[in-house]
Amino acid sequence: MTGSESLFTKLTAGYDESLSRGGVDGERIAQRLSELSMIGASPDGGVTRPGYSAEEKQAKQVVKSWMEQSGLQVTEDGAGNVIGRLEGIESGPAILSGSHVDSVPNGGDFDGPLGVIAALEVAEAWRETGYEPRKPYEVVVFSDEEGTRFGAGLTGSHAMAGQLTEEETNLKVDSEGKSFETVIEEYGSTLPAVWRAKRKMSEIELFVELHIEQGKLLEKHGLSVGAVKGIAGPVWMNVTFEGEAGHAGNTPMDDRRDSMVAASHFIHMVSTLPRQFSDTAVATIGKLNVFPNGVNVIPQKVELTVDIRDIHEDKRDALVEAIIEAAEQSGVSHHVDVTCQKTLTVQPLLVNEKLLTDMKESISEFGMEPMELMSGAGHDAMVVGREVPSAMLFVQSKKGISHNPEEWTDLSHCVVGIHVLKDFIEKQMERS
Amino acid sequence: MTGSESLFTKLTAGYDESLSRGGVDGERIAQRLSELSMIGASPDGGVTRPGYSAEEKQAKQVVKSWMEQSGLQVTEDGAGNVIGRLEGIESGPAILSGSHVDSVPNGGDFDGPLGVIAALEVAEAWRETGYEPRKPYEVVVFSDEEGTRFGAGLTGSHAMAGQLTEEETNLKVDSEGKSFETVIEEYGSTLPAVWRAKRKMSEIELFVELHIEQGKLLEKHGLSVGAVKGIAGPVWMNVTFEGEAGHAGNTPMDDRRDSMVAASHFIHMVSTLPRQFSDTAVATIGKLNVFPNGVNVIPQKVELTVDIRDIHEDKRDALVEAIIEAAEQSGVSHHVDVTCQKTLTVQPLLVNEKLLTDMKESISEFGMEPMELMSGAGHDAMVVGREVPSAMLFVQSKKGISHNPEEWTDLSHCVVGIHVLKDFIEKQMERS
Repeated sequence: MTGSESLFTKLTAGYDESLSRGGVDGERIAQRLSELSMIGASPDGGVTRPGYSAEEKQAKQVVKSWMEQSGLQVTEDGAGNVIGRLEGIESGPAILSGSHVDSVPNGGDFDGPLGVIAALEVAEAWRETGYEPRKPYEVVVFSDEEGTRFGAGLTGSHAMAGQLTEEETNLKVDSEGKSFETVIEEYGSTLPAVWRAKRKMSEIELFVELHIEQGKLLEKHGLSVGAVKGIAGPVWMNVTFEGEAGHAGNTPMDDRRDSMVAASHFIHMVSTLPRQFSDTAVATIGKLNVFPNGVNVIPQKVELTVDIRDIHEDKRDALVEAIIEAAEQSGVSHHVDVTCQKTLTVQPLLVNEKLLTDMKESISEFGMEPMELMSGAGHDAMVVGREVPSAMLFVQSKKGISHNPEEWTDLSHCVVGIHVLKDFIEKQMERS
Repeated sequence: MTGSESLFTKLTAGYDESLSRGGVDGERIAQRLSELSMIGASPDGGVTRPGYSAEEKQAKQVVKSWMEQSGLQVTEDGAGNVIGRLEGIESGPAILSGSHVDSVPNGGDFDGPLGVIAALEVAEAWRETGYEPRKPYEVVVFSDEEGTRFGAGLTGSHAMAGQLTEEETNLKVDSEGKSFETVIEEYGSTLPAVWRAKRKMSEIELFVELHIEQGKLLEKHGLSVGAVKGIAGPVWMNVTFEGEAGHAGNTPMDDRRDSMVAASHFIHMVSTLPRQFSDTAVATIGKLNVFPNGVNVIPQKVELTVDIRDIHEDKRDALVEAIIEAAEQSGVSHHVDVTCQKTLTVQPLLVNEKLLTDMKESISEFGMEPMELMSGAGHDAMVVGREVPSAMLFVQSKKGISHNPEEWTDLSHCVVGIHVLKDFIEKQMERS
């Protein structure tokens, strides 16, 4: 949100009040989004709430007070994950929903908070309508999802899902040089307590996360929400083209080993490859540096990154191989040396057919076309989804802008999302 | 030259002494190159003698003393150009030869000094053999050729040829913020004196400059020297591709406006265009910057430079037009906005047929294949050549490396070059 107008005023301005029904209250949602937007607010309208910062802690405190007001039993685990639990009519594994309240530096007001407030609003709605869930229900706030502090996020969900490794905690050092252990102690926990945050996965039946799309497809199709069919796991690669520097005037065209020309051949090939493997695959050269980068010097070296994603692991991996082959081809045909190095490999998550169908049904029942979407970005649902069935619901993002003060989702879209989320959760409550 | 060994020792080590004949003395040449290499020497073996610095002035002082020793009448004009004049048997316009003694920061020992020492060696040889030139002969040291100080060079030759503009001198500010006027005054001259450095071109019959190739063609062909058929004038262009940023994971391939992909298409096209226009044309994308340059962000903007050169102005200009068209095509086909802006246009110089033939004859008479070369870099001969007939002789450069402490030319190649230069000048002395 930008400008001096409060987020509440901006959100409620164009709101379709008829959407506040069945215990779901648009005004309360706007109030809560607005209240969180003031914690860590930056002068130009963004928010800065790094993982394990005082600001993230304060935001969690506010959420805890809301949880208590709505009758949830509040706990916080050793990794700082906040859980608000509502017992079910029957005992057994719980249905979880939530997201995170940390942000990137100067981030937006919806990425994270909306998923937490939505999960809480489901419980609020039940309280108002007197609905009693058959199974236990938990609203969860995961710690440090964005990873701004340590350059690697999803810390809270990793800890809860037992995916945090000692290597990871040892490597985590923040920009001030503080170790993860120091940061955790300053936050008020301990490293052993972080390890104890791991839960028995038999306690959880499924996890569902509502999140803004951070893409433009829903806006393009005029839809408030979409069902996520999978979360693409990225492979990151560093590719280096190394040729020979030379004077731009004194080196004939056919006597060059120009790393920039080789790289450009590669980049253009990469842009055509994903669709040969999968409809959902993407590949991006986002970062590229030229050496020595002088107007009249033939580039000696080009270093670039490739970000390759798909929800289908086998197809993504085949695409990665094809991209490596393309790099080698470009090198050979331009007499330039090439090296490729993978720097990150994350397992994608396919949402199971049953949950995807249920989510689409809940969308259809609301009277909206049930569009399937891929999530290109990682989420806590990806982490939890490796252990227990997990689903995601995306809500329209204006222009797809995210991680930016300009991040925006109309309140009407938020409330439609919460209705769909509530319906989906209620369906899961009835399943045996 | 690198290492602690003196340049003299390194130069004379592999020297073919039979080349010292006809008054040309390889040892003297090595001594003089070595002496200049100590002025402004940097710890790793390079030299730093910016235009109008104390180091350039000291180097000129040394050259002046050599000029005096060899009986030349020494003057310095208001632009700091040093002239050593030998009267001819007849009066009339003079034949000029020389180069410069300033250098880029941490530059090499041959770029500039070799051409000055060569021109002087011609006079030395005449003195030893008793040859009396029919026409006046002048050895010239031009000031500030490299332009490191002000970002635009050829100052001395511009001043002498009357090509210095008031706009140019007003714009020139060094890295410390000193104006050209201040620098010139600290150097010991004045701005009005710089303007008075302009000579009547009727005083000059022709100019010939010996210079290292700064390319690899002579080395590749095993030749000591080559005749320059033209000096390519560069056109510099800034090209900007502006698309739309987006999340690398959340933006489908067919919904992108990726400025990097558009730029790569353009870069690859540019690499194939020059040969369609001219054998000597070249085009280089040397500098490229991506915004925001993040691994997982589709590049919003790519800014790059194109350096386009040919010795044929019409063909170069046609190539420039084709490159602009290619940029626009790449923009249209990738839904990306494109802007092209020329930032520099320098007129190329074609050496006249007569002088080129004479130079090739002098090379042939030495027993060497007379290879024609293009100069891709600018030289004082390009400036003087706009006013009076001018020629250039290139001497082999090791690996084509220049503007670098690794710059190297074997003494034998230097001396072959001086024999050819001397023969060429003597031929011009006899022409009516």
